[in-house]
Amino acid sequence: MASIGTVTPQSMFFADALPLQSGAALGDYTLVYETYGTLNAQASNAVLVCHALNASHHVAGVHADAPNSSGWWDNLVGPGKPLDTDKLFVIGVNNPGSCFGSTGPMSPNPDAPGQPYGADFPVVTVEDWVDAQARLLDRLGITQLAAVIGGSLGGMQALAWTLRHPKRVRHCIAIATAPNLSAQNIAFNEVARRAIVTDPDFHGGHYQRHGAVPRRGLRVARMLGHITYLSDDSMDAKFGRTLRGPRPAYSTQEIEFQIESYLRHQADKFSEYFDANTYLLITRALDYFDPARATGGDLGRAFAPAHDNRFLLVSFTTDWRFAPERSREIVKALVDNRIAVSYAEIDAPHGHDAFLLDDPRYHGVLRAYFERVALEASALRLDHARPCPLPSPRGEGPDRHTKP
Amino acid sequence: MASIGTVTPQSMFFADALPLQSGAALGDYTLVYETYGTLNAQASNAVLVCHALNASHHVAGVHADAPNSSGWWDNLVGPGKPLDTDKLFVIGVNNPGSCFGSTGPMSPNPDAPGQPYGADFPVVTVEDWVDAQARLLDRLGITQLAAVIGGSLGGMQALAWTLRHPKRVRHCIAIATAPNLSAQNIAFNEVARRAIVTDPDFHGGHYQRHGAVPRRGLRVARMLGHITYLSDDSMDAKFGRTLRGPRPAYSTQEIEFQIESYLRHQADKFSEYFDANTYLLITRALDYFDPARATGGDLGRAFAPAHDNRFLLVSFTTDWRFAPERSREIVKALVDNRIAVSYAEIDAPHGHDAFLLDDPRYHGVLRAYFERVALEASALRLDHARPCPLPSPRGEGPDRHTKP
Repeated sequence: MASIGTVTPQSMFFADALPLQSGAALGDYTLVYETYGTLNAQASNAVLVCHALNASHHVAGVHADAPNSSGWWDNLVGPGKPLDTDKLFVIGVNNPGSCFGSTGPMSPNPDAPGQPYGADFPVVTVEDWVDAQARLLDRLGITQLAAVIGGSLGGMQALAWTLRHPKRVRHCIAIATAPNLSAQNIAFNEVARRAIVTDPDFHGGHYQRHGAVPRRGLRVARMLGHITYLSDDSMDAKFGRTLRGPRPAYSTQEIEFQIESYLRHQADKFSEYFDANTYLLITRALDYFDPARATGGDLGRAFAPAHDNRFLLVSFTTDWRFAPERSREIVKALVDNRIAVSYAEIDAPHGHDAFLLDDPRYHGVLRAYFERVALEASALRLDHARPCPLPSPRGEGPDRHTKP
Repeated sequence: MASIGTVTPQSMFFADALPLQSGAALGDYTLVYETYGTLNAQASNAVLVCHALNASHHVAGVHADAPNSSGWWDNLVGPGKPLDTDKLFVIGVNNPGSCFGSTGPMSPNPDAPGQPYGADFPVVTVEDWVDAQARLLDRLGITQLAAVIGGSLGGMQALAWTLRHPKRVRHCIAIATAPNLSAQNIAFNEVARRAIVTDPDFHGGHYQRHGAVPRRGLRVARMLGHITYLSDDSMDAKFGRTLRGPRPAYSTQEIEFQIESYLRHQADKFSEYFDANTYLLITRALDYFDPARATGGDLGRAFAPAHDNRFLLVSFTTDWRFAPERSREIVKALVDNRIAVSYAEIDAPHGHDAFLLDDPRYHGVLRAYFERVALEASALRLDHARPCPLPSPRGEGPDRHTKP
């Protein structure tokens, strides 16, 4: 399996404002994106990859000016890899509100000349992102995606595609995700936000105007987030109770345990590159996502629009942030609608982060699924686009397939 | 069951320095404590209650000047209650380093006249607290405790009693506790500490000298702690995804969900009464507790000194901070030593906080155990102090009893 090699981000300007769920609108904006592989003549082999909290459009390959800049899903996307760019045309796009090139809080605010948006950037939701992605596809000449895929918050976007634009996507692959955040999930997000907002360098979100960065808050937010991405067991296996020195130093403020050193290092790195307002926006997008809110809490009814879509859901046994139970809620909602869904519950020790790793069973499930997606894409003529039946992937745990 | 009624804290001054695990010593110091019930003529019916992170000596009853000041374990301790003060003499003591009256970081530093200790208060461990408690018992004329009991960090103290002073205690009741913190536990503590230490009002721990209080950090620490005390399910049952308003307000900084409102309220309250240096000290005491460190990780060997003690361990199914597995590690270590241990795993929905609540099965187990403790205490003559056999309590889950 070869790597994608060097890739170059592209950008697309949109002059028309994007109407938002909140009722506000995002004025003209730019989206940064990358593509891998070749769009076929029928434009039937496009796969959109949706990113999670701190990732970006840079899904695979490396940037020419940064040889160590592998994309965040480079183990999945490339020639001969499970998402095979020899067959599929893969698109990664940075969502508006993020801090990696698309219009976000650090971008110039058209209503305040010479100033960045800062805290005035409008609140964006998963549905808003999906709408922005759909507009990008319009411009790329892609009427219907072969598939949309994402993990965690990216999985929520993949799900939202089938609810907002069901005819514009055939397959939805949603990994390590949930139909909404639990109270505990929201609570963790809120702690992170309070750490950022109450940092004196936050200045109500207009820190750039003050030449400041709320790094203390960002560090705390990242440390906390990081704990929720790992399983208890994997932290014990990796760090345990190992001291940094040969014996306890008996200090309340200095580093004593290896796990503390690791978390502080992760936090320092993160606070150097991530924008605080983006952190607030993205955690809020997570909080708000709740397709069943519009149907009185009935997730089955919420998924009714997706009747012609096909789904693969994947969860990981040790993921306590978005536990398998949450994926099973989605599976049940789809089954209740007699919508085709395959589900793989992977026995993996790495917690939520497992969706980024290359566990062989996990990648085996994705490979098998995408082989069929690619076969279908190559056979498909768009004028009678109708997916053909898929066999069940070979996964762990329960494995359901309806509408054979 | 009557309440204890009005109680008055007492204090005891100790002129001799307390040698600490760190090699340092705590100079002269005061311990604040409360007692409930009457010490019998043989002084054989004393039960020591050890407190956890943010509790104190005020275990039961109310203070005369504050009618709403019920003790933190008032549902357990009182006349006719499971820990029956008609039969047992119960002692609650505030540990040194705390902020409720015993000598701690807010107390005058003898080495810096006119200044509080602040960050210069020495690091204290679970073992140091147990030694301080033992000195208090000396002064109260109690040679041997009928029992020591505690939950969470208090349970660690109860365990440490049997390792440091095994002949001075007959029964150890350790609830919702662990033989040490996992890497994840330490990580959560570290996030809380970083929030406090990096608060600009912390001033390296000498905030009192600056007339400041690091309330922002304390608030974040408390919110985070609070999440880990509750189960995911109980948070969902109590708060779910309920919005504060009729519909989303689409704000990143304002309160949107009820859970956020609740956590902020808890955090505000906590930051008004709790001392930041105490928070650091107590979380470090949690981190350091690890009786098996001295025996190369062998918890069985660590418990060898407790060969004549009797144990009751209790855990709660939904406690993910100190999960039942952690209690079972202790049970195994005791069984390996052929030490008498009863274990009850209570099916309760409330997470770690369950140890403070009055679940009937939980309190039933404690009542049964303490009835025997009291019976034994009343029958016992200290010159041939040897506990009599105890039947197993009626608890949930596995229930082991050795040395019949």
